[in-house]
Amino acid sequence: MTPDDIDGFYAKRADLNLEDYIELDFEFECVGDPREAAAHLCSEQSTAQWHRVGIDEDFRPRFAAKVLELSAEPRSGFSIAVECAVRGQVHACRATIAHPHGNFGPRFPNLLSAVCGEGVFFAPGIPLIRLQDIRFPDSFLAAFPGPQFGIAGLRQRLQAFDRPIFFGVIKPNIGLPAAPFAELGYQSWLGGLDIAKDDEMLADIPWCPLEERAAALGEARRRAEQETGVPKIYLANITDEVDRLVELHDMAVAKGANALMINTMPVGLSGVRMLRKHATVPLIAHFPFIASFSRLAGYGIHSRVITRLQRMAGYDVVIMPGFGPRMMTPEQEVLDCVRACLEPMGPIKPCLPVPGGSDNALTLEGVYRKVGSADFGFVPGRGVFSHPMGPAGGAASIRQAWDAISKGIPVADYAKDHPELRAAFEAFGKR
Amino acid sequence: MTPDDIDGFYAKRADLNLEDYIELDFEFECVGDPREAAAHLCSEQSTAQWHRVGIDEDFRPRFAAKVLELSAEPRSGFSIAVECAVRGQVHACRATIAHPHGNFGPRFPNLLSAVCGEGVFFAPGIPLIRLQDIRFPDSFLAAFPGPQFGIAGLRQRLQAFDRPIFFGVIKPNIGLPAAPFAELGYQSWLGGLDIAKDDEMLADIPWCPLEERAAALGEARRRAEQETGVPKIYLANITDEVDRLVELHDMAVAKGANALMINTMPVGLSGVRMLRKHATVPLIAHFPFIASFSRLAGYGIHSRVITRLQRMAGYDVVIMPGFGPRMMTPEQEVLDCVRACLEPMGPIKPCLPVPGGSDNALTLEGVYRKVGSADFGFVPGRGVFSHPMGPAGGAASIRQAWDAISKGIPVADYAKDHPELRAAFEAFGKR
Repeated sequence: MTPDDIDGFYAKRADLNLEDYIELDFEFECVGDPREAAAHLCSEQSTAQWHRVGIDEDFRPRFAAKVLELSAEPRSGFSIAVECAVRGQVHACRATIAHPHGNFGPRFPNLLSAVCGEGVFFAPGIPLIRLQDIRFPDSFLAAFPGPQFGIAGLRQRLQAFDRPIFFGVIKPNIGLPAAPFAELGYQSWLGGLDIAKDDEMLADIPWCPLEERAAALGEARRRAEQETGVPKIYLANITDEVDRLVELHDMAVAKGANALMINTMPVGLSGVRMLRKHATVPLIAHFPFIASFSRLAGYGIHSRVITRLQRMAGYDVVIMPGFGPRMMTPEQEVLDCVRACLEPMGPIKPCLPVPGGSDNALTLEGVYRKVGSADFGFVPGRGVFSHPMGPAGGAASIRQAWDAISKGIPVADYAKDHPELRAAFEAFGKR
Repeated sequence: MTPDDIDGFYAKRADLNLEDYIELDFEFECVGDPREAAAHLCSEQSTAQWHRVGIDEDFRPRFAAKVLELSAEPRSGFSIAVECAVRGQVHACRATIAHPHGNFGPRFPNLLSAVCGEGVFFAPGIPLIRLQDIRFPDSFLAAFPGPQFGIAGLRQRLQAFDRPIFFGVIKPNIGLPAAPFAELGYQSWLGGLDIAKDDEMLADIPWCPLEERAAALGEARRRAEQETGVPKIYLANITDEVDRLVELHDMAVAKGANALMINTMPVGLSGVRMLRKHATVPLIAHFPFIASFSRLAGYGIHSRVITRLQRMAGYDVVIMPGFGPRMMTPEQEVLDCVRACLEPMGPIKPCLPVPGGSDNALTLEGVYRKVGSADFGFVPGRGVFSHPMGPAGGAASIRQAWDAISKGIPVADYAKDHPELRAAFEAFGKR
């Protein structure tokens, strides 16, 4: 690129109508002049050939992505070895880029193609790049549905206020037929869970068809509601081919599921948005596949980008990798995702963050302290369903842990005269 | 896990009905005993709690993923820094795992959730893992449609045999209205392209609506076919929200598009499979997003896994990152993806591989030599559309390069009395 070519991909915020642009924060490592590398990054993700041969025209003012901010520091080599990287002096860079959303419009597949596509990951001289964050103008957000119920609507449905929402993943997750599977859910509701859920790997499958499962769990849920006097939710996983989502929604809800889970990346954000138009119950996101591009600090896509998109697509709840060594996610990243659910987002309602992974009664207080409010969901699996006193005992241990926390009593002390909580300490405390 | 727990996740091929299993090749780096880590990897991706509390049962024989092969070598630390990795002696491991597909059935979202999901990327002690390859039994493949036309069908449609198929990405890619955009396509067909295509970022957008574009290109295509006497293809990008795909297919085809492109990962494999049921024209895959999880040797998902799934979903053509430094893809990985399109795959037809990226008349011979046959597509963008003699000259330069190759004449020699090819050398040769 000539200096003049490069200049066409730089702008000042004051000179742009910011409602026309999405802002993207990138961190990247490049070989060569960082200023030119950032221009290439813009050019490749928008208009890399901005005029026809022999015609005096320039599509950059309207259609080019533009660098708003750039900082660069030399470093000795790349932070991650890349077999085909160009060689030379490496710079570690941060860039904020304004990308004109009029290039593609308010559609997930076209948004992803522009901001996580060939242009971003194949910009010359930039073998390592990570999309760290994304910000949308309100006029763009207004085209997306966002949550139908949101946190307030979910709390209303459950009559659960001023405390976390207690989920549990029914285990054994794979292999049980509908009747014994429903019995486990029933026990967990009696013990105090708000929401008993399918594992994200449990599908509509011959050995446990969704129709039978939703009917059995729906019946068990209604019994549990009568016996406990409080509303309960059976969260069915309807992850399946996109052209079955609406049909599975209708069938599962008719049989007795009153919230539905979708594995976002395997199904596609677009499929979720389609379902949101039709849904009559809360929609819950699960996170398979996301770690494949979000774990490493120096490459890929930060998970909060996907959290934001999930909220825009219409999820009421987003389950995400949570705290603790098992989930291998930096605490700050979990908090970034939690905040992406809760913070103001133009016309889009907040959704409930559920930072999960190998939780039990002993981990509740840590999650609560880290999140800093009760606006979260807590989602044990084995912490409820392999509790030595069974699912009812497991669920009770979680509720007892919350009782202790909310009363300001040390959880370990509270365990002394609460057998389910004490059993949780005995079973899970050594981990 | 106890030694007995671990044993439940190991098996010999001879003891399994292999038609019931998908085989997965993983490479991973773990802390702790590699044999236990591989058992965890199986457990987490299938049944991590294989019995109910207090009930003597074992879901592992039918439902557990099982290690078939494992090798491990100690190494000093992880190959990529991971902030939250456990500490201890690291082993680099290769494992082949048999995953029972009856756990989820022949559906893309559920397959991806199982083999690229939480279980794989959050197995205890394994912060770095890469799914290197996947193999399916024929009975599982039989549930997927595969290409409708395949390579033979595409060649028949184009009457193009025993040579590469010549694509070109119309540029400027973003910003042109339909009429001048169609004029560029027309010129490129006259010059010798088989297929003029939309850029993967060009959507159905107000400044160039797909309906107008397909009509203009369809009309230009028919004129080019009459003037050249050979069939041509206008490949329209219909990447959009999944619930518009069928409608856009019908509209674009009615107006004059005779092949359609979808950005696979942004739309979702499932949306493509849905479209395949309905499609009357060849479907072409583009690769945005894939690099976010496939570039690094030590983490994520090898791109050939996605190539195989794209072929199963029903694409007739798969565009993929090709050779050359711009695409930052190891030559062996490109060849692995090419082979994944061409090699036998049970009842699934071959599809045409198109290794692309910054190509022009000078790079054709290298691609041909590397692929080792003429069963590939060649897809320049600026190599045709910023050729100094315009798109007709650019297209002609590509065809002249192929003429030279097929006659066994050095391309540079052939350029001497072929002005378009000579101009390509002058314009692109210095790169």
